[in-house]
Amino acid sequence: MSVICGKLQHDISKRCVIVFASDNGVVEEGVSAAPQAVTYVQTLNFTKGITGVAVLAKQFHADLLVVDVGVNADIADASIQHRKIRKGTWNIAKQFAMTRDEAMQAILIGIETVTDAVKKGYKLIGVGEMGIGNTTTSAAILCALTGLPPVQIAGKGAGLTEKNYQRKIQVIHAALACNNPDPTDPIDILAKVGGFDIAAMAGAYIGAAKCRIPVVIDGFISIVAALCAARINPLVKDFMFASHASFEQGYKVAAEALGVAPYLHFGMRLGEGSGCPLMFAMMDAACAIMQDMGTFEQGSIGEEYLEEVRDADFHIRGM
Amino acid sequence: MSVICGKLQHDISKRCVIVFASDNGVVEEGVSAAPQAVTYVQTLNFTKGITGVAVLAKQFHADLLVVDVGVNADIADASIQHRKIRKGTWNIAKQFAMTRDEAMQAILIGIETVTDAVKKGYKLIGVGEMGIGNTTTSAAILCALTGLPPVQIAGKGAGLTEKNYQRKIQVIHAALACNNPDPTDPIDILAKVGGFDIAAMAGAYIGAAKCRIPVVIDGFISIVAALCAARINPLVKDFMFASHASFEQGYKVAAEALGVAPYLHFGMRLGEGSGCPLMFAMMDAACAIMQDMGTFEQGSIGEEYLEEVRDADFHIRGM
Repeated sequence: MSVICGKLQHDISKRCVIVFASDNGVVEEGVSAAPQAVTYVQTLNFTKGITGVAVLAKQFHADLLVVDVGVNADIADASIQHRKIRKGTWNIAKQFAMTRDEAMQAILIGIETVTDAVKKGYKLIGVGEMGIGNTTTSAAILCALTGLPPVQIAGKGAGLTEKNYQRKIQVIHAALACNNPDPTDPIDILAKVGGFDIAAMAGAYIGAAKCRIPVVIDGFISIVAALCAARINPLVKDFMFASHASFEQGYKVAAEALGVAPYLHFGMRLGEGSGCPLMFAMMDAACAIMQDMGTFEQGSIGEEYLEEVRDADFHIRGM
Repeated sequence: MSVICGKLQHDISKRCVIVFASDNGVVEEGVSAAPQAVTYVQTLNFTKGITGVAVLAKQFHADLLVVDVGVNADIADASIQHRKIRKGTWNIAKQFAMTRDEAMQAILIGIETVTDAVKKGYKLIGVGEMGIGNTTTSAAILCALTGLPPVQIAGKGAGLTEKNYQRKIQVIHAALACNNPDPTDPIDILAKVGGFDIAAMAGAYIGAAKCRIPVVIDGFISIVAALCAARINPLVKDFMFASHASFEQGYKVAAEALGVAPYLHFGMRLGEGSGCPLMFAMMDAACAIMQDMGTFEQGSIGEEYLEEVRDADFHIRGM
């Protein structure tokens, strides 16, 4: 964080998790345990403070910014940012999810959302999402980016049955076959097999790097978006902090491809950005150590000791 | 936690890290980067709030209880609990660290310290230590408990040079050879190659189980003490939560022997109990989820969905 912020002690007390909400046409293939309407319901629930990320954000003094980039419903709630591109993507098993222009638009929305947040004083952000079907789109993106087969990447999302899990794998195969995304072009991949949520999230990471603030990755969908951002511009990786290791098997693939290691291991698989506030608390701890822990001199520990143990506290200060 | 506390929602806001401080005769063998006087200096520094664990305890609203069980100095500070058994153990490379009676005394001090803390209203404790040379005694204990050779267990502690690391391994071999601790008798092991700090810590774990409160393990020394406690009575394991994966190579051996997996991966190797407050914050998060996260019904998510995703939030609630 010190390298990002350019100083040893910094204030990350004003922070937020940004949740990009959107629907995915691919749910008509039966790839999700939940009906599409849950996207809309949960998007409203964020504002009521009863979702997982809302509870954790409150616990660790973070705000929750909810951005509708493509929920398949009319949302009038004033506490939600209305940046809807369209009411859900097209079904990637049959055609591209969105046009390239729409993908660019979603990425720009992500960049703008973070830029606006930074203008309002936020010094640290986390990137979350809500979109039924988005573990399928994330898995398709990651297959396209890495060349690995769906069976090594797709997981059971929020409680998929074995039968529907096999269906999900077939759907990802179909999406890759019919759209043939260019593995060297992350924007092409986002447009063809992605979602508005993931494209906006990729933009959010780029926005954080542009504004030079640290940005926290949540779970599987969030890290796939982070990987897209890093493939668009590798420099953005330097601003990213992985939080928790998602239970979804694709998380590990994405983390290795991105070159990050998660700090928290809770076996969580909730998404929404729920790992971000947990990581904020750990980053608070790192700041407190930099701020308040005594030096060896302050602790009356002699110079002869200093020579050998100067690296002893390196690791906790290294965050 | 719910199983330990017997209810779904509980208050862990009053919590503490208990630091047992003691000196080890084995430091005369040159096994530590730091001089023995650092035990005394750091024991006082805890009360000044400038050590790592003190900063982190403050950050996450935990008290710090410092107990002198064998520091090689006269300590008069009123904020330190005075339970000194003796001014440091004997040199385990040449003889037993303490008598069996002294080991029992140290264990009882640990039990009593926790019992007293619980009487004062503490609902959650962490177990830390300060004692120059105690990665050597911990490694010797773990070798005796597991039968593994020192080279697979000993680490470089707080910044040991390669030369002194080799010396440390030789010293552990010598300690095991001359004392011949009974691998089936953890109290014999603690007495022969342990320390007052580790024996008292083992007692603290037993005390937590006796009082039926959750107890958090810190790093290498703390988990070796936890393993001793579990070998004395396997039931105490049910009350333990591992916090962070210590950088010391022996940590992993002890965690596997104990059957726990750490939640936090920061590459820390500070000791003192510094991982405990970090874990307290994560346990706060688990409590907040149990307290405030909406049920599917509260979130207007229908019964047909419920059937399939009831386990989706199982993992974060499972702590």
